Amino acid sequence: MLNIKLIIKILGFLLVVEGFAILIAFGVAMLYQEPDIYPLLQSALICIVTGGVAIFLTRNAKLTMRKNDGFLIVSLVWVVFSLFGSLPYLLSGSISSLTDAYFETMSGFTTTGATILNNIEALPHGILFWRSMTQWLGGMGIIVLSLAILPVFGIGGMQLFAAEVPGPVTDKLNPKISQTAKNLWAIYILFTLTETILLCFGGMGLFDAVNHSFTTMATGGYSTKQASVAYWDSPYIQYVITFFMFIAGANFTLSYSALTGRFERVYKDEEFKYYFLFVFGFTAIIFGGLLLTTELGIEQAFRDALFQVVTIMTTTGYATTDYMLWPPILTYVLFATFFFGGCAGSTGGSIKIMRIVLLMKNSYYELRRMLHPNAVIPVRLNGRAVSDQIITNVLAFFMIYIIIFFFSSILLTIVDPNLESAMGAVATSLGNIGPGLGNYGPAYTFYELHPAGKWLMSFLMLLGRLELFTVLVLFAPAFWKK
Amino acid sequence: MLNIKLIIKILGFLLVVEGFAILIAFGVAMLYQEPDIYPLLQSALICIVTGGVAIFLTRNAKLTMRKNDGFLIVSLVWVVFSLFGSLPYLLSGSISSLTDAYFETMSGFTTTGATILNNIEALPHGILFWRSMTQWLGGMGIIVLSLAILPVFGIGGMQLFAAEVPGPVTDKLNPKISQTAKNLWAIYILFTLTETILLCFGGMGLFDAVNHSFTTMATGGYSTKQASVAYWDSPYIQYVITFFMFIAGANFTLSYSALTGRFERVYKDEEFKYYFLFVFGFTAIIFGGLLLTTELGIEQAFRDALFQVVTIMTTTGYATTDYMLWPPILTYVLFATFFFGGCAGSTGGSIKIMRIVLLMKNSYYELRRMLHPNAVIPVRLNGRAVSDQIITNVLAFFMIYIIIFFFSSILLTIVDPNLESAMGAVATSLGNIGPGLGNYGPAYTFYELHPAGKWLMSFLMLLGRLELFTVLVLFAPAFWKK
Repeated sequence: MLNIKLIIKILGFLLVVEGFAILIAFGVAMLYQEPDIYPLLQSALICIVTGGVAIFLTRNAKLTMRKNDGFLIVSLVWVVFSLFGSLPYLLSGSISSLTDAYFETMSGFTTTGATILNNIEALPHGILFWRSMTQWLGGMGIIVLSLAILPVFGIGGMQLFAAEVPGPVTDKLNPKISQTAKNLWAIYILFTLTETILLCFGGMGLFDAVNHSFTTMATGGYSTKQASVAYWDSPYIQYVITFFMFIAGANFTLSYSALTGRFERVYKDEEFKYYFLFVFGFTAIIFGGLLLTTELGIEQAFRDALFQVVTIMTTTGYATTDYMLWPPILTYVLFATFFFGGCAGSTGGSIKIMRIVLLMKNSYYELRRMLHPNAVIPVRLNGRAVSDQIITNVLAFFMIYIIIFFFSSILLTIVDPNLESAMGAVATSLGNIGPGLGNYGPAYTFYELHPAGKWLMSFLMLLGRLELFTVLVLFAPAFWKK
Repeated sequence: MLNIKLIIKILGFLLVVEGFAILIAFGVAMLYQEPDIYPLLQSALICIVTGGVAIFLTRNAKLTMRKNDGFLIVSLVWVVFSLFGSLPYLLSGSISSLTDAYFETMSGFTTTGATILNNIEALPHGILFWRSMTQWLGGMGIIVLSLAILPVFGIGGMQLFAAEVPGPVTDKLNPKISQTAKNLWAIYILFTLTETILLCFGGMGLFDAVNHSFTTMATGGYSTKQASVAYWDSPYIQYVITFFMFIAGANFTLSYSALTGRFERVYKDEEFKYYFLFVFGFTAIIFGGLLLTTELGIEQAFRDALFQVVTIMTTTGYATTDYMLWPPILTYVLFATFFFGGCAGSTGGSIKIMRIVLLMKNSYYELRRMLHPNAVIPVRLNGRAVSDQIITNVLAFFMIYIIIFFFSSILLTIVDPNLESAMGAVATSLGNIGPGLGNYGPAYTFYELHPAGKWLMSFLMLLGRLELFTVLVLFAPAFWKK
């Protein structure tokens, strides 16, 4: 039996937290004295009151939580947060339709960064701040979820990373989760502050710097400018952002190791090694391609290639150039990186480097097993044998990911008959990236997409963000059986 | 160490067989007294002499064959057959470039059916007959390979089907292979004859009927007419061909069971059940879509939907209508069936129903395992638990298939920047189907494709036909180690 009361209680508690988060945006609005002051205050109060009522009504809830409750809560948090989080847009009139507001907020909390806004600069500062904050909170949530909570539940092959979670307390479960979460949040905040300062040094205004640091560390990609990072025609700013996107796409526990002086963990980490190789491998191909086929100078070609590869592979989704204007082969090589994603335990989405590495290794081992059918050849990662259970899980993840990608693309052609655009939209939503291809390339937004398409994209963002299984399990009849 | 001499000896022997096969086409040319008489005779003699010399030079070869020799032979047979099999086209001037002739022959032997010919009716009868025969021989080869030879080698998850192989002799290896092969060939020939007779009844000329029966049973799809089966505006002919394509896409050992009166095997076979469901499920969707969106009558809409679904899913690739003219969503739903393929042990290519079923089941079981992590829940097929080893193999197969599809599509955009056309061309080549999308849809041919693209497609046909691993293993360094 699901503990519905407890689920409502927890959601209520989190809704109060969301309300207080909106109050911060309200503070920003007060500073700028813009017309979004009251809409933000109203939104915050609605969240806090609704949450408070929910907590009050469930005050006698039993505090025993089972696995199934956990699955349901995790999915519902994103759904409910996006619903209430769209209030500031709706009440301020920044976005008029619920579909659009929900899409924008889900895109925020899932750190996707796909937008329906066609005139971002017209929005008041409080609303813009809330928009960036949805990503920052979403990023924080996903780190804690993937590194501290999911491993405990044994979800999505995450057991593999559980052993890597830092934290001095290992004898008890709850203190460990709590300590881990604190450590990770500390790093997250530290990186955000550092990036803000470095961006200000480069001439970016404080407001823009804070917003971009929020959305960089979350690998979200929302910008305060319609032109995204291209607005600042500054190599320094682009390199700083590139560096922090790269960091945000790496495993936060590795950053923790590095910051506490254990550099050998970083050097020895296989996932990080491949992450580095993939980023620079794809950059090299596109850099070479741009040099051969365009008039760009060496530095500009390198920067364009590096920025686009890092922003897509980490699933951030800023733009400094329109890759749809590249020679098609280079656009499609970049499209391949839509499916790589960041490292496990980062804020990045998509399939993730860890899985890609395991899949590559298993494929090669499968060939070796053909040659030596009786030899036991386990896939190894960081020197340890990876269990068959995890390999099967990762393979199944890949398969389900690709099938969802494929069928959703086909489904989307009902409302947008251009297959390339449909595939781009689905890949970018499912991978929590931001820009897509064709009609949804970096130069365009999702505004024109049919409402049914927007709801499908919102669902895909949720699916991708929660590593498929966490959501899909809710559709298994076995989940609802007593 | 590879037994190179034995490999050459076997290839030589098979080349002699190919020479005699060309002699049959020479016989057809004699009947029609067309200018392809001498080119066919020359081609046959070149094959027989080259093969004879190879056999003579390797007369002292040791007859011990190891697994690695087997892998190499299987791949080389298709490569060498396609090289020598293109002689009739080249010597008769029917196709002037080696690239085109090789593409056409590889497309034949792999039973793909993609063509570079733009005026098929202009070809002499002997050449047309040889063209259809490459598919018929290829189909025969693949049945024997997948049902009698590969299982013995334990290749590609084929162990799973090995137990189903019919044949009274089970105590000794070679007699079993031999008997199995004979039984399967007998069925193959029987079906070909039956279809020929039924097509003649429908008013198709004997020559066309034989050719189409050849290419139906091979799920090849070469036609003697540029307009393919659409040339005959006869529902009867289209339904007959649909029926035999469906049979050819089913496991030939099941047909053997049915023909020997063991119908319960057919009813109980899970793969066949899903094959049936997929065919009629996709037909129903497209039939409904055509009724809603076009002016077609009910019978015509049903026939168009059924024929296209069966021809694509069995990987035959005939055309009775241009599905690129359908509403895009229906075209893309049909495109999804490019990845299904026929049953294991059929002449069909692509991923194959057996694998699709195992993948579907495993995905669902993966969700159940999340809910009950300590329960042992094996995937079952036909009532038996499927080993983890096979599941991993099938998952790896799917992954490699999709990755090859994806990266080859991107690679192909170098010579054809239209991503949809590139994806269609790659999917149809890798799946051994025939027509693709866009520039390579049913109304077009591969003639315009850049030579580099044609070689890539030829390689993909080989990869797909030999179930990926058999070819890919040759690229593993471990294969070449002593």
